Amino acid sequence: MKKAAIGIDIGGTNTILGVVDMDGNILKRNSMPTKTESDYHSYMDSLVELINDTISSFEDAVDIRGIGVGAPNGNYYNGTIEFAPNLNFQGVVPVVDFLKEKFDFEIIVLTNDANAAAIGEMIYGGAKEMRDFIMITLGTGVGSGIVVNGEMVYGHDGFAGEIGHTIVDPNGRECGCGRRGCLETYTSAPGIKRTVFELLSEMNESSILRTVSFEDLSAKMIDKAARDGDVIAKEAFDYTGDILGLKLADAVAHTSPEAIFLFGGLAQAGELIFEPVVHYMEEHMLNIYKNKVKVLPSELPPGDAAILGSSALVWKELA
Amino acid sequence: MKKAAIGIDIGGTNTILGVVDMDGNILKRNSMPTKTESDYHSYMDSLVELINDTISSFEDAVDIRGIGVGAPNGNYYNGTIEFAPNLNFQGVVPVVDFLKEKFDFEIIVLTNDANAAAIGEMIYGGAKEMRDFIMITLGTGVGSGIVVNGEMVYGHDGFAGEIGHTIVDPNGRECGCGRRGCLETYTSAPGIKRTVFELLSEMNESSILRTVSFEDLSAKMIDKAARDGDVIAKEAFDYTGDILGLKLADAVAHTSPEAIFLFGGLAQAGELIFEPVVHYMEEHMLNIYKNKVKVLPSELPPGDAAILGSSALVWKELA
Repeated sequence: MKKAAIGIDIGGTNTILGVVDMDGNILKRNSMPTKTESDYHSYMDSLVELINDTISSFEDAVDIRGIGVGAPNGNYYNGTIEFAPNLNFQGVVPVVDFLKEKFDFEIIVLTNDANAAAIGEMIYGGAKEMRDFIMITLGTGVGSGIVVNGEMVYGHDGFAGEIGHTIVDPNGRECGCGRRGCLETYTSAPGIKRTVFELLSEMNESSILRTVSFEDLSAKMIDKAARDGDVIAKEAFDYTGDILGLKLADAVAHTSPEAIFLFGGLAQAGELIFEPVVHYMEEHMLNIYKNKVKVLPSELPPGDAAILGSSALVWKELA
Repeated sequence: MKKAAIGIDIGGTNTILGVVDMDGNILKRNSMPTKTESDYHSYMDSLVELINDTISSFEDAVDIRGIGVGAPNGNYYNGTIEFAPNLNFQGVVPVVDFLKEKFDFEIIVLTNDANAAAIGEMIYGGAKEMRDFIMITLGTGVGSGIVVNGEMVYGHDGFAGEIGHTIVDPNGRECGCGRRGCLETYTSAPGIKRTVFELLSEMNESSILRTVSFEDLSAKMIDKAARDGDVIAKEAFDYTGDILGLKLADAVAHTSPEAIFLFGGLAQAGELIFEPVVHYMEEHMLNIYKNKVKVLPSELPPGDAAILGSSALVWKELA
């Protein structure tokens, strides 16, 4: 019988679910809105229903080995979502304990979404043969997952790997975390938008982006403008690459990875972002690390990465 | 028969050697100057002689299980010292291969001095029960050793853990590594001296330190002046703590340790340095990590730490 794992990604808007075999084929997909009430019980009840519906549709044709959950502020040790600013749940949500009461699988495991992406890359993607690498997710926020000696780094408290909240400038841009100058405020999708507005204020170059309001501007528009030769947009990518390159050089000085994978909306800008990131990372890097660390695009298909990552948690536990 | 390990610390001036039992008692000490010729062969010959002399003095009364070597730019995977700026050896010195030709021990192992200090702390010191911690050495330079899941982080290339060369300000102070603004240029013993001179140039406060030349000034003098209430000296410690606290908050966002140990000359300033480091680390830290991470003085006796750390490498390999 074919072995499979259930991967669940809890996002701010939707919760998506997939049944995935060991080769990363998605056998079944499902989804539901992530409930917006502050109480998590009705949300968890709906999630249980969704899982049951999905399982029953297979009629014993696959051997489901477990459930992996990726969620913002997910804590691997506790199996909880803790004070996630982008979810409406209050406080600590004991996701794994709740699911264990309802399901009998050997493995029910949860971690944060960037760690899940890293494990997805290790099980199904470009990091299959790697023992030391870093995953950086460049989306609405900047997440990271660090792998050392073939193991996910969870740290003492289960929350290791928040490179998006290392500080570029303690007097810099306001961050959603309440501090200033976090990497995330520069190199997320909203971050490059802020950079465009900073550059529009500083430079006199004409730019198509001068006709767009802050609310209307998207990372995609900056991408398109840069490809059309817009000087401000190109400068915004260069600036973003400089700051990300600097902080990746710092990250290398911590765990000295074989590769750094970039994932998420901004990574899809391809050479526009990879070229300056590599250039500035090398420029800022300590000599002993120079020209050793690969910067690679994630090999996970963007639309399915969240499901693949969370399902991969199950195989990682069983390995 | 009592089990023991040989610990060797290769420093810029002297090479010191100790025979250490499993409880960290130093049964025998020895030392020799670190040869200053660029060719390493005569140095290695002298080192072999020193080891043989030390071993023979025991007349089979102890069971020596191996040799651990701590050295600047030591590479654990290769057993080599590679391009160490503070040693006169040119290029790559294959220390472990050389010793393996001469000695028959099961374990002959080498790593950099800060990693050796971390393992010393884990085997003999305050990190005995810890699986996740960071050792920061504040001496002539700033070194670091990172432990994750109970294992030393060596990284893909064997050189992981150079937090002293993460960048505080890419336009900052010139560093010996050829770049600018490394943490080491601010929080080493020479770093706080540079800070005093910066403050003397910026502030009008009278200070005993205004009578001392750059060459004559030592970290000890700054320590004494601060204890005597000198405003510039106190401000220098505060400034040092702010920068170290900021970069330790970044380090926590990587591996989320249970504790950070401070070791070396500057750490011996006690509350003068610990108080501002803890204050600013907490101030700069992401909320999920706040009030969780202990900042502790190393429990290794300063004079013997290098020998203890390098001998501990042997026990770590045998564990």
